[in-house]
Amino acid sequence: MRFDLVTIGDELLLGLTIDTNGAFIARELAELGGQIARRVSVGDAADEIARAVGEALERTGAVITTGGLGPTSDDLTRPAIAAVFGRDMYFDEVQWQRIRALWQARARPGEPPEANKQQVMLPEGCVVLENPIGTAPGIFLEDSAGRWTAMLPGVPGEMRAMLNERLIPLLLSRGRLGENVVRSRTLRTTGVAESMISEMLGSNARGFDDVSLAYLPGLEGVDLRLTVRDAPPDVADARLEARAAILRARMERYLYGQGTLTLPEVVLELCRARALTIATAESCTGGLLASRLTSIPGSSDVFLGGVVSYANEVKESLLGVPQEMLDAYGAVSSEVAQAMAAGVRERLGASIGIALTGVAGPGGGTPEKPVGLVWIAVDFGDWQRVYKGHFFISREDIRFRATQSALDAVRRRIEVPGDKTGIRND
Amino acid sequence: MRFDLVTIGDELLLGLTIDTNGAFIARELAELGGQIARRVSVGDAADEIARAVGEALERTGAVITTGGLGPTSDDLTRPAIAAVFGRDMYFDEVQWQRIRALWQARARPGEPPEANKQQVMLPEGCVVLENPIGTAPGIFLEDSAGRWTAMLPGVPGEMRAMLNERLIPLLLSRGRLGENVVRSRTLRTTGVAESMISEMLGSNARGFDDVSLAYLPGLEGVDLRLTVRDAPPDVADARLEARAAILRARMERYLYGQGTLTLPEVVLELCRARALTIATAESCTGGLLASRLTSIPGSSDVFLGGVVSYANEVKESLLGVPQEMLDAYGAVSSEVAQAMAAGVRERLGASIGIALTGVAGPGGGTPEKPVGLVWIAVDFGDWQRVYKGHFFISREDIRFRATQSALDAVRRRIEVPGDKTGIRND
Repeated sequence: MRFDLVTIGDELLLGLTIDTNGAFIARELAELGGQIARRVSVGDAADEIARAVGEALERTGAVITTGGLGPTSDDLTRPAIAAVFGRDMYFDEVQWQRIRALWQARARPGEPPEANKQQVMLPEGCVVLENPIGTAPGIFLEDSAGRWTAMLPGVPGEMRAMLNERLIPLLLSRGRLGENVVRSRTLRTTGVAESMISEMLGSNARGFDDVSLAYLPGLEGVDLRLTVRDAPPDVADARLEARAAILRARMERYLYGQGTLTLPEVVLELCRARALTIATAESCTGGLLASRLTSIPGSSDVFLGGVVSYANEVKESLLGVPQEMLDAYGAVSSEVAQAMAAGVRERLGASIGIALTGVAGPGGGTPEKPVGLVWIAVDFGDWQRVYKGHFFISREDIRFRATQSALDAVRRRIEVPGDKTGIRND
Repeated sequence: MRFDLVTIGDELLLGLTIDTNGAFIARELAELGGQIARRVSVGDAADEIARAVGEALERTGAVITTGGLGPTSDDLTRPAIAAVFGRDMYFDEVQWQRIRALWQARARPGEPPEANKQQVMLPEGCVVLENPIGTAPGIFLEDSAGRWTAMLPGVPGEMRAMLNERLIPLLLSRGRLGENVVRSRTLRTTGVAESMISEMLGSNARGFDDVSLAYLPGLEGVDLRLTVRDAPPDVADARLEARAAILRARMERYLYGQGTLTLPEVVLELCRARALTIATAESCTGGLLASRLTSIPGSSDVFLGGVVSYANEVKESLLGVPQEMLDAYGAVSSEVAQAMAAGVRERLGASIGIALTGVAGPGGGTPEKPVGLVWIAVDFGDWQRVYKGHFFISREDIRFRATQSALDAVRRRIEVPGDKTGIRND
């Protein structure tokens, strides 16, 4: 089934609210064989709502709306769409008693405000989608040609409950969702540019006949998303697995995970399986690496702790970096990075020391040590490496990408011991 | 000016990406008198793109698009919209040289991939909107009737830079933005619940006749957003200032800033003005406090460094917390929090020591020390306090809110020395 989505509310046009409802509805229905043909957002104006819904009915004959079902004067979805279907409105006594019961259940005094009565003025001949959480009932309207519009509230919690508990069962019972589904699988890479990936994938760079491929670059690296559309669930899964296997073979060492798995999770799990522990020494990243590791539940069995050595005195006092070394090479140098990694590893008694020192910017750069230069040292005791990274764009980007590179250096050391690749500059 | 916004990408229809670009563009242009009439999202299909842009040109004659300018086969915005305007494409040598220069500046070997050439195939007669960050140039196309379409990339960082640095100056220079504006002002509060704020604001809790008020709760606290619509810029500013003054007086010590100012920025500035320095000792927050402070450019003149003492041995070795104290009270205790704050302050020679120790969850809670319990200690040397916080929802929420409370304790000590309020549990 293809359908149109119309989200309603002035706040969406003013940019005061980010529309998360649309993405939620799209994901839930895609899994069941529903595909959005187009998304439209309009303001709280009856003529705009009617026009958008009318156009959508022309296109696909199947429309879901969110928003504009509340009790105030700017809630115009009900009458606007009733007019599109040529229906009169009636007062729904059953729904009004539900609102009264809800009012009393919440221990509020007296009767619900008169304004709530507007919410139970419904189009003749509709199917009511009862609201399991709030006051606004949803509405399902269908014409004699089988074209339909389902109206859901804009409050995300109410919308989600009504989609899953009311609308989806209704669409399934009427055979309106397809047999076929849309399914995706994401392979996560880091340390390699989009254009390089394209070259590595060669003839598969543009995807496959039966599976499309999208490149999603972000701070963590480039995600490769495979998508199968309009196939039975088991066929979709089999195609995804076959195509993912090809990409995995081509991307080899650059691939760190799948789905929503993050690099800190991967590194923690690799270390946990080998009983390795980590300690960090951070200058320019200022605790971001430690924070990313400790954001993962259960990280304490691998991560022992770290030092944020922002001032040079802290590099000396807590990490044992010699003052002479700092004087000779400066804080941003491969020598100091290595000394920080060794220092924190020894002092915390960890298997692995990771250190970062660099220029996060926006100020403080020099021709020799420009903004974005970060030295990354990894010390396994019997194996040490230092990498020179150069990262771009903003302070935030530089800091995040530097921590990603540092984690990836640890991952590669464990997963791909023979790998000689340095850190890519991006 | 009214305009239409068309965001392009299969991921928007599949619900795999939440469209934040639309909200950003809407806000930026509303400030300058531009109002979105309708938002549409379509997939990566040339006919869908052309149809949506064609319809939008009929409606308002002014269209901004995002997405589909990349180097891969699913990037179809350029040719699809060129066809709507009846333009041929040409190879733009100037933009190609820009991409080559960017490639070399990032120290990559050889020439940029052939795929990038697609990005500089531009419609005849367009105005190029140069990309200050990435490879994809933006495009501004106008027909003889003055109807126009501006194409921006979908990557948020690039889109934002190009909107502000290229498209808005172009629209202003051509007199395409309006006289009346929508303006907002945000007052930022922390440590106080939405319902409490509503009581503190009394008769103004629902806003004012001429200025609307929205409550925006988030991890940092509750923001109060005042908005004026459809007024000349100077009138809007005067109304906002008058109403903000009322809210400021009512919210007193809970108000930490305005606009997009963050609490780390406020604390750093308060300390900088008094030549105070900060050192941090973090257990459950694992470096997040240090990372938030060091995310601010120039933080190094206030923030000296910190210790992430995840393992108990690190609390002892780097912070001098006595083993007997850890044994007697446990790591999550007011005693250990105070010893951590004092230890890090002394060892790093800072004016202020801040320490956090708690249970971030989701596991590890006990009846006496439940998930969400965080002890926060602040040590100014001659003034010491320890606060018991209890935070809720997720590990991420608990960690973030704990760092926010710790920073707010420092802010209040400096800004409101007589204040006796503890830390609010939320």
